[in-house]
Amino acid sequence: MKLIQGILQGKVRPLAKAISLVEDNLIDKEELIDQLYPHTGKAAIWGVTGPPGAGKSTLVDKLIDRERSQDHRVAVIAIDPSSPFTGGALLGDRLRMQRHSLDPQVFIRSMASRGHLGGVSWGCSDAIKILDAAGFNTIIIETIGVGQTEIEVVELADLVMLVLAPGMGDEIQAMKAGVMEIGDLFVINKKDLPGSEKLKAEIEYVLNLSSDNPEQLPPVILASAQKSEGIDELWKKLSTKYQQLVKSGYLSARRKERIKKELSRIILYKVHHLLDKKIALQDNIDNWAEQVYLKKDMPYTMVNKQINRFKKEMRLDDSKN
Amino acid sequence: MKLIQGILQGKVRPLAKAISLVEDNLIDKEELIDQLYPHTGKAAIWGVTGPPGAGKSTLVDKLIDRERSQDHRVAVIAIDPSSPFTGGALLGDRLRMQRHSLDPQVFIRSMASRGHLGGVSWGCSDAIKILDAAGFNTIIIETIGVGQTEIEVVELADLVMLVLAPGMGDEIQAMKAGVMEIGDLFVINKKDLPGSEKLKAEIEYVLNLSSDNPEQLPPVILASAQKSEGIDELWKKLSTKYQQLVKSGYLSARRKERIKKELSRIILYKVHHLLDKKIALQDNIDNWAEQVYLKKDMPYTMVNKQINRFKKEMRLDDSKN
Repeated sequence: MKLIQGILQGKVRPLAKAISLVEDNLIDKEELIDQLYPHTGKAAIWGVTGPPGAGKSTLVDKLIDRERSQDHRVAVIAIDPSSPFTGGALLGDRLRMQRHSLDPQVFIRSMASRGHLGGVSWGCSDAIKILDAAGFNTIIIETIGVGQTEIEVVELADLVMLVLAPGMGDEIQAMKAGVMEIGDLFVINKKDLPGSEKLKAEIEYVLNLSSDNPEQLPPVILASAQKSEGIDELWKKLSTKYQQLVKSGYLSARRKERIKKELSRIILYKVHHLLDKKIALQDNIDNWAEQVYLKKDMPYTMVNKQINRFKKEMRLDDSKN
Repeated sequence: MKLIQGILQGKVRPLAKAISLVEDNLIDKEELIDQLYPHTGKAAIWGVTGPPGAGKSTLVDKLIDRERSQDHRVAVIAIDPSSPFTGGALLGDRLRMQRHSLDPQVFIRSMASRGHLGGVSWGCSDAIKILDAAGFNTIIIETIGVGQTEIEVVELADLVMLVLAPGMGDEIQAMKAGVMEIGDLFVINKKDLPGSEKLKAEIEYVLNLSSDNPEQLPPVILASAQKSEGIDELWKKLSTKYQQLVKSGYLSARRKERIKKELSRIILYKVHHLLDKKIALQDNIDNWAEQVYLKKDMPYTMVNKQINRFKKEMRLDDSKN
């Protein structure tokens, strides 16, 4: 397959084409991914997340520089909140990263976070495999926000960097708590702003509280992406942390866990698709909803009626199952 | 059932107990909801969303005042990002609303946005029914952020208010685009900050572009919740908009659509649960993942092998289905 050859040679056009294929979730992609799969497993996959305004894109931009100085090839997948009007265009901030687009060893692609069959993490996971097979040394997945979608996407990474900034208000600081468990490394960006040292102390305090191994706490690094300060330290800590993950066997455990989740998700999606006709949901749901709307049937009574019908039809006997 | 009586009388303790029941997704809740269901349909359900820091909680606080001045009973469900450490405690900002907790005609409850069986929208949807049956005139669902979870929750509302504030950066402004389609009414809070008029103009421009009916554009209101400015106008526009939704038949269409989504979600969840054993996912997934990790099998090859086995076992023949 010519497409496969092109990808393995790291050519931009076949890469872009293949990623569109997985974005559209076409059936062809299955063969493509399975053929590329033996060539995967070499790239380091970094997840970058944190609240809007923390300066993630600027930070990623600087990390690309640092990686390029080591002659590493870098790919970035930027997960954008989809816009129904603009069709999920690149965000303003991310345009900054586009200066790297002249460098053939850097590949930047944005993916919309909504409207994917089976969820964005499915498409993103296939895109990572394509980029990995294409020989990129480092693949960075950048997401905005800390919703469930973002957490799913970040779970595709080997190592997760959580980017925060001081003075973002109570709500944002509380949001960070929800994702602290997924951070392998914390960056407090905009370190010149008041409150950065305090935020660092707070995070370290919470990490200490929740850790069962105080020797292996995630590093918390002060940086200013804008002024290129702290980037070198961050990059070194990243490398050290990654080596730790490899040596401790944690990386392979995490990758197995990821494959497990991925297989489960796809299998359940396909099973669901197969059963659509048996449940006859699409054909009848309007009528069922109308009955409930008119209060001729109560919601759970209606649900259980349909479930019992399905059980009978599929010969799923309670006593045996 | 004593619990039902207590709820229908609008008593706080039975209400709190019932909501805990749906939060924990216990089977008892099905009977409870079905018994309360005939008493629902009277409350107006408002969804309030927008990026962190836009001042949603302060605005809701002021809207509670306004509703109380009409002698309306108000319930608020605040969807909080869950924290694995604090167990999803109330956010600092929302504490402000708590001053209403001395008023027996105001009920405020926070629900965590993660870790719910079947998703937070399921629990939230049941909680709305309980509050509706308890005779609250207005039920406000407040969410933080614009992720998929938040959009699902907001879809439970009759009318959605999107709260923005000027000067929140490119990223946040881009996020709003992803939810503009769900806003029935836009509030630009913190109107004294520079850029509020500009933001208003931008939103009106985008709304104009995307609307097929320029006569029925969602109102965009400048307000300052902190200074109690614009609240009266907002409240009046809310009432007018609500009346419009009722008269145009749009409200009942939206409620039918909501029942449809809800029934589908619960049915699929239950079907999935029923089939767990047939797919034998839990028992075998570790082994399947190991094979793929070791590259003895390719991901989609493995998936399709299991799907075919399932089809055989369930006698789902391709030609017939």
